[in-house]
Amino acid sequence: MLDDDDRVAVLAHEKFPERAKTAVGILRYADYEVAAVLDRQNAGDRVADHLSGVPDAPVVASMSDAPAVDALVIGISPIGGGFDESWRPDVRTAVERGCDVASGLHHFLGEDEELAALAADHGVDVWDVRRPPADLTVAEGVARGVDADVVLTVGTDCSTGKMTTSMELVRAARDRGVDAAMVPTGQTGIMIEGWGTPIDRVVSDFVAGAAEDLVVRAAADHDLLVVEGQGSIVHPAYSAVTCGLLHGTMPDRLVICHAAGRDAIHGYEDYAVPPVESYVDRYESLAAPVNETRVVAGALNTAALGDDAAAREAVDAYADAVGAPATDPIRFDAAEVVDSLC
Amino acid sequence: MLDDDDRVAVLAHEKFPERAKTAVGILRYADYEVAAVLDRQNAGDRVADHLSGVPDAPVVASMSDAPAVDALVIGISPIGGGFDESWRPDVRTAVERGCDVASGLHHFLGEDEELAALAADHGVDVWDVRRPPADLTVAEGVARGVDADVVLTVGTDCSTGKMTTSMELVRAARDRGVDAAMVPTGQTGIMIEGWGTPIDRVVSDFVAGAAEDLVVRAAADHDLLVVEGQGSIVHPAYSAVTCGLLHGTMPDRLVICHAAGRDAIHGYEDYAVPPVESYVDRYESLAAPVNETRVVAGALNTAALGDDAAAREAVDAYADAVGAPATDPIRFDAAEVVDSLC
Repeated sequence: MLDDDDRVAVLAHEKFPERAKTAVGILRYADYEVAAVLDRQNAGDRVADHLSGVPDAPVVASMSDAPAVDALVIGISPIGGGFDESWRPDVRTAVERGCDVASGLHHFLGEDEELAALAADHGVDVWDVRRPPADLTVAEGVARGVDADVVLTVGTDCSTGKMTTSMELVRAARDRGVDAAMVPTGQTGIMIEGWGTPIDRVVSDFVAGAAEDLVVRAAADHDLLVVEGQGSIVHPAYSAVTCGLLHGTMPDRLVICHAAGRDAIHGYEDYAVPPVESYVDRYESLAAPVNETRVVAGALNTAALGDDAAAREAVDAYADAVGAPATDPIRFDAAEVVDSLC
Repeated sequence: MLDDDDRVAVLAHEKFPERAKTAVGILRYADYEVAAVLDRQNAGDRVADHLSGVPDAPVVASMSDAPAVDALVIGISPIGGGFDESWRPDVRTAVERGCDVASGLHHFLGEDEELAALAADHGVDVWDVRRPPADLTVAEGVARGVDADVVLTVGTDCSTGKMTTSMELVRAARDRGVDAAMVPTGQTGIMIEGWGTPIDRVVSDFVAGAAEDLVVRAAADHDLLVVEGQGSIVHPAYSAVTCGLLHGTMPDRLVICHAAGRDAIHGYEDYAVPPVESYVDRYESLAAPVNETRVVAGALNTAALGDDAAAREAVDAYADAVGAPATDPIRFDAAEVVDSLC
């Protein structure tokens, strides 16, 4: 676990920043400090050369070049969640320097023979964020009865900004004085918030149960929950996760996330992204027999669009398509849609 | 693993036959011989006293009373999949007599300290059917390209007869000379067929990948695949499994299974079963962006209805509701709808 006053290095070799979702999420939202980003392709640059609106830090080639830190965080996750052997020297160096290691890979570093032994030798912790709790079970169907408003972010695809939108909505709601909480369901959110369950790693029979458990726990302490959604309900590989979250969390409201210009499923380019407007009914009608819900806002990632005027035009068209107020929570402001949540 | 010429005893204490889905499935469909059913409540009866249309066998009180067999099969699975300690003496006796043990429980007998040690001492195998392969990964989105027709059984709820319907459709297709194969996704089907993957036990990110893998493997050897479906797409606990199967197997055709008279979700009585006709569009429209499919037949479990005339009337009404030919594959004949599959 990472503390608010920790300093960390974030590994993002050859992927920073566009394909380093976890690294960017941590830079943007974590309370602990990022002292360096490891990216051998951009070594010598600064974070600020690539990303605005986040704390700056040096980009270095390897852990040997990183300043003193408390932990190394694996900030990228290839499809399949495997460990890239080219990262091993960095993890080894980190452990030998006495750093903890946090990883959201499917491949658990704590079960890697060499790294586990090395970590034990050096008395450091390996936090495999994607390891689910051992005591999960099937859903009881009780999330609809919790004493909190539950919002779920859903998407037209993976990597459309569900985690970012969830974080920004919680911030905007808190700015209005609402006792709001983010409910993390993926490795980045869990690394940022320090709790949550990696839903995509849960045994499929227990997905809805794990989601229900998160909602029940968070509802005991907060008035508004924004559950981080995963995948897409028509994704060729990940729809099981999405469907279990939809029925397990029993949200009162949905916020639908899309990336401007995305017309094929990310990583599955033979599969088209259906028209955005079709997703509204698809999510609402699939949820309805278990719990009535409706899309109350849209979030559009406009990073692919050149200027603010084009982005605003795209957001307006998106709002029309989904039949609800919309924004780009990064380029513009989540406050534009937060009224819809409460 | 069980061979076609094996003889087995099937444990079904206090649940035979109504709540012993696995035991009944094995009696009905397995190629190996059931030499005895263990049910301490009905000891002294015959299988034929309780079930028709299956091979007869004695019902005995314990493994000590069973004739010589090659294996003991656990033929019941309580909600949660736990091991009932009252069964331990039977498993112990079986192992001591040199029998293999096959179990579909979530609780793996191969990890039970006493039983694992005893099995090693006696040189017998413990086959935990519900343990998924270790090498699963995410779907590649390739199932739609296989060289076989793929049919998936789907349902309005759990326990509506998807496994039974799949078995009966394969038999009926073979009777027509079609090279058809059942693709097992649950413990009973796996025990009967001797291969398959327990989809509900797979990590949620890999559900579609595991389903795809089954289809790709079976398509190499057969012309028509009938994939055993699981759960329901609007089940409060198990929809993740259903959704991953739908998108991972990319079926050409669907057969929808329902139990006559079922109006609330089994075990979740606060949740109504939506109108049967609404499921047709729900399954088809959810599948469409990944792979176009359509409901081509219906299977209605009419066990709750008194006589054949009432059952036929219910089947006809069901056919109208789902807009496709329908039958009860047990009371009537799967051959009535098999033309729709090919």
